[in-house]
Amino acid sequence: MTSLNIPTAGGFRPPAVPEVDVHGFWGERIDAVADKTVMILYDRCVAAGMLDQIDPDRLVPEIRMPFHTRADGSPDTVNVQMFWDSDVAKVIEAAAYALYRKPNPDLEAKTDAIIDMFEKLQQPDGYLNSWFIRMQPGKRWTNLRDCHELYCAGHLMEAAVAYFHATGKRKFLDVMCRYADHIDHMFGPRPGQRPGYCGHEEIELALVRLGRTTGEQRYLDLARFFVDERGKRPHYFDVEAKERGADPKQFRHRTYEYNQSHAPVREQTKVTGHAVRAMYLYAGMADIATEFTDDSLTDALKILWDDLTTKQMYVTGGIGPAASNEGFTDYFDLPNESAYAETCAAVGLIMWASRMLGRGPDRRYADIMEQALYNGALSGLATDGAKFFYDNPLESRGTHHRWIWHRCPCCPPNIARTVLSIGSYMYGVSTGELAVHLYGESTARLAVGAAPVTLTQRTDYPWDGRIAITVGLDVPVSFKLALRLPAWCRGAKLSIDGESIDVAVAEDKGYARIERLWRGGETILLDLPMDIRALHANPAVRADIGRVCLARGPIIYCAEEVDNGAGLNSVILPGDLSHAGAGSIEQLGKAVAIDVAAKRERWDDWRGKLYDAKKPILEDVTTRFVPYHLWDNREPGEMLVWVRTER
Amino acid sequence: MTSLNIPTAGGFRPPAVPEVDVHGFWGERIDAVADKTVMILYDRCVAAGMLDQIDPDRLVPEIRMPFHTRADGSPDTVNVQMFWDSDVAKVIEAAAYALYRKPNPDLEAKTDAIIDMFEKLQQPDGYLNSWFIRMQPGKRWTNLRDCHELYCAGHLMEAAVAYFHATGKRKFLDVMCRYADHIDHMFGPRPGQRPGYCGHEEIELALVRLGRTTGEQRYLDLARFFVDERGKRPHYFDVEAKERGADPKQFRHRTYEYNQSHAPVREQTKVTGHAVRAMYLYAGMADIATEFTDDSLTDALKILWDDLTTKQMYVTGGIGPAASNEGFTDYFDLPNESAYAETCAAVGLIMWASRMLGRGPDRRYADIMEQALYNGALSGLATDGAKFFYDNPLESRGTHHRWIWHRCPCCPPNIARTVLSIGSYMYGVSTGELAVHLYGESTARLAVGAAPVTLTQRTDYPWDGRIAITVGLDVPVSFKLALRLPAWCRGAKLSIDGESIDVAVAEDKGYARIERLWRGGETILLDLPMDIRALHANPAVRADIGRVCLARGPIIYCAEEVDNGAGLNSVILPGDLSHAGAGSIEQLGKAVAIDVAAKRERWDDWRGKLYDAKKPILEDVTTRFVPYHLWDNREPGEMLVWVRTER
Repeated sequence: MTSLNIPTAGGFRPPAVPEVDVHGFWGERIDAVADKTVMILYDRCVAAGMLDQIDPDRLVPEIRMPFHTRADGSPDTVNVQMFWDSDVAKVIEAAAYALYRKPNPDLEAKTDAIIDMFEKLQQPDGYLNSWFIRMQPGKRWTNLRDCHELYCAGHLMEAAVAYFHATGKRKFLDVMCRYADHIDHMFGPRPGQRPGYCGHEEIELALVRLGRTTGEQRYLDLARFFVDERGKRPHYFDVEAKERGADPKQFRHRTYEYNQSHAPVREQTKVTGHAVRAMYLYAGMADIATEFTDDSLTDALKILWDDLTTKQMYVTGGIGPAASNEGFTDYFDLPNESAYAETCAAVGLIMWASRMLGRGPDRRYADIMEQALYNGALSGLATDGAKFFYDNPLESRGTHHRWIWHRCPCCPPNIARTVLSIGSYMYGVSTGELAVHLYGESTARLAVGAAPVTLTQRTDYPWDGRIAITVGLDVPVSFKLALRLPAWCRGAKLSIDGESIDVAVAEDKGYARIERLWRGGETILLDLPMDIRALHANPAVRADIGRVCLARGPIIYCAEEVDNGAGLNSVILPGDLSHAGAGSIEQLGKAVAIDVAAKRERWDDWRGKLYDAKKPILEDVTTRFVPYHLWDNREPGEMLVWVRTER
Repeated sequence: MTSLNIPTAGGFRPPAVPEVDVHGFWGERIDAVADKTVMILYDRCVAAGMLDQIDPDRLVPEIRMPFHTRADGSPDTVNVQMFWDSDVAKVIEAAAYALYRKPNPDLEAKTDAIIDMFEKLQQPDGYLNSWFIRMQPGKRWTNLRDCHELYCAGHLMEAAVAYFHATGKRKFLDVMCRYADHIDHMFGPRPGQRPGYCGHEEIELALVRLGRTTGEQRYLDLARFFVDERGKRPHYFDVEAKERGADPKQFRHRTYEYNQSHAPVREQTKVTGHAVRAMYLYAGMADIATEFTDDSLTDALKILWDDLTTKQMYVTGGIGPAASNEGFTDYFDLPNESAYAETCAAVGLIMWASRMLGRGPDRRYADIMEQALYNGALSGLATDGAKFFYDNPLESRGTHHRWIWHRCPCCPPNIARTVLSIGSYMYGVSTGELAVHLYGESTARLAVGAAPVTLTQRTDYPWDGRIAITVGLDVPVSFKLALRLPAWCRGAKLSIDGESIDVAVAEDKGYARIERLWRGGETILLDLPMDIRALHANPAVRADIGRVCLARGPIIYCAEEVDNGAGLNSVILPGDLSHAGAGSIEQLGKAVAIDVAAKRERWDDWRGKLYDAKKPILEDVTTRFVPYHLWDNREPGEMLVWVRTER
């Protein structure tokens, strides 16, 4: 068994989190999460009663969370308490990365205690789910469609892998391997096994992580089985419903598009349903495509990728506009004020994008990963690490604010674990190539074959586009180094030890791919000019017509009331932004603000009138824009991403 | 008993329909409705099975329309079939006006036959409701909140009044007086009477019409009782629900704001709930205010009027943005594409506005009456008189079309009777004054006191703002003539027999009020210049920001795909419209089109892209606008009222 993710076949794999020391922009965020968020998450899980449900030494508690209501008014069989194991698992995963970041004996002891509970809770056959062991015993594996059972298993596996990497302790990893063995025993193509899969995807990508960490091929095969089985006829969820005496049509989400099981995965061409589920499925599919070099999956994923990113994605990388299904609706239906755009869905998009890089560097994936990361995902976490957004609208009249906790507390640990594990998203490692997908002050201890390679980035990214990368080697090694050239950048410059490289010649799929014998000590200078861009949306997006959104580097900007006063829709940006300036923002660290000389309609003389032939008077103003992910970190008020523009 | 509405006290009353011969713009519409619509309505009522329910000589039919479903999935006690009497009544009312317009023995025979059915159906005590006599016997007066019982009675009364005016036949009027007497016996403040009122307002204004026609004061007093009782505590609908063994909270519309009984009417300050119900209530209140010179009602109505017209009304005069409650939501919530803006609600607004003129000429009411009439109401009727809109959005992607019939067929007969009775909205008659509220080619036979006065209008209004009014008298009479000076008009000119009148001096509340001894034969020339106006909306209306809507005279304009191609949101109007031209529209008679030199964004190069820094290219185009009420009368396609404007 290998301890880290060293690839043994084709394709690129992410480094394990401890392999990358992150500083700078992300380092500060990691410290905030490690110092504050993780313990907040732990405390809130305790306060919610989650450990009462898990710990077999405590009395079985009352059910705390109400069951959902069906359309006909009757109580459904599902509530959010069913997937508490997954919330606790994400907290353990975040705790693991935090412990790697800095020792914290108190947090480690608390995490070990939870792991002990799970170990004690585990049944002799390996089964492990606190809801179905303690709250609804006897019902295990009877409703994969609704009950999040394999989803919870997946998050526990991810947590176990992370905790092992961070602490070297095997206990939780062994517990989860026993559970994975049980699942492998229950589900599969052989006689007596069930051809099932989960209504809430996650187990697929988790089994790949577990397989990569343990070297156990069965886990990869089982993940592939879940992916391949999904959506086949007769439909497993129909069969399963009849077996438990239920009408398959009694499904609160009506169509299996909700959980992406309406068709076999290779036949799906439209991104549908619950956004987080879709992203986790596609992430798992991409992992399987990498592990099994399965082009049939890659081809399907490319179609889905285009479908999502050219018809259904907010400019923030937020996805899933509708609250009703926490997911997708019609093409180009991207309302700003009512945008659901759950933090978890942006995290899921980052996960999918990073796994699409498993088949090789390609900026169509890495650019979107970066876009979702710096905007629609990071917005979910306040700078102090103590407050959260669940939904991430692109416009607010001033009533949308960060909250302390949520009855469905999936987002806080999800953005926390993503921030803490950002190092693993920055690089890709194959047998002969190292890819730099994301830039940021950091040191990565990677390897090409058996040869260790240290890549050190010095940069103020994302506030500045100049990056210095030094290559550290014990002995000279020949390998390819791939450096992403973001599509948002015009005029990228590249040099190695002062010798300039023609970017146009070196570029392949948006990466400068430099193959040579590296001797160690080389310094690569990459300059990515960060011009201020005014982005227009496809006019099929009704909400954004006549509006632009400002961007600089990977950062999407917004205007806030705290800087500009109320009535942000009175601001009209000039068509020419060449005079826009960049400044710094008090209260928000090194963040770069954009100041634009704009026009503004006077709106103060409308009292008592609804329609009027008088043209609104224009005034000259300077309008300040701040990074979208930082909004609602100062005084509350209006916020606007898509601002009117001169025509 | 007087046969027409001659005022005997203060206040202004509308003339009866036969007193005004209408030609020109409205004359053509009246002919289309009389020639075609009325018989279509009759046929569709027959096809729906309505007469099977009414005719006591036929077998009691099966229930044809499904009951509503409650939020909890159980069937409600209400369906749309319950108020079929009201649909038939509106058809009789429309037929009455049509018979006045031109003899039609077939239609008259059919109408007489329905009246005979109602006469036969009437119970010995005067009660008359086909649903509760034949479909649900024994349940009468047990659920005023939901079952439209007094609402149906009101429409039957209106029909009876109209049929009497049109034909001179008394049978139906007598039937309805007997029913009104029964209702007056059942409801009232005396011991043994019920302090009830209808959940669907209408009876109030109907009783006033019946009282004015018959001279019976009891009907006016009963109308006043219904108005005064509404919203008092203990709440009648609560008491009534308990009496029939139901939980008062089991109400599918949750709050009594839905039917405007949440507070006594004089304490209501916000226009809420179901839009048609609200309008009918306020219309009835205004009638009572006029009949009883009740300033406490007038004061309440003024507050509600401002609330509606400065915060909750579309520029078309459409009201009630939401389909969910067929009514009002939040202030300034006026989405264009999803606008419900039911035809009946605009008709209701016209009815309310016309009755606000009962306390004297005031253009704040007459202007809005005209705005709703020419736009949000008239749009509900196709030019051929055979197709209808139920909801009247202000933007369509090309999928919203006129329909032949509707399961809730309230709008077609409502707009039909409004068009046919337009003459009665044009004038107001008091003891010493005649008011001209609406302009249009017509001859009105009115009276001041006992002296007959004929007012003849010669004009191409609404396409041209020049109006010639001649005063016809038998003998010289001294009276005041009030001529509306619409607020949309700048530079109105007025002369009598060539002698110019200073409009500014003569104006009072937006009317030129000319008091003199009229000798007969005078010709008044009124010139209302119709400049093309670009209207802006209050910026609190989020949907209209950065957009304008074109208007000329009382007509609101829209762009249609048939004239301009698809992608109407790519059109950007210039800030200066002085070069806009007016033209005529093939296929749409004398209607005036507006042609504007505009810019248009090229939208053809967006394929496969969602966001892009490239600014859309602008092209020069001429964009054609047509009257909103005429849209979807030619080839189907997109439609847009609020068009982007240059900034």
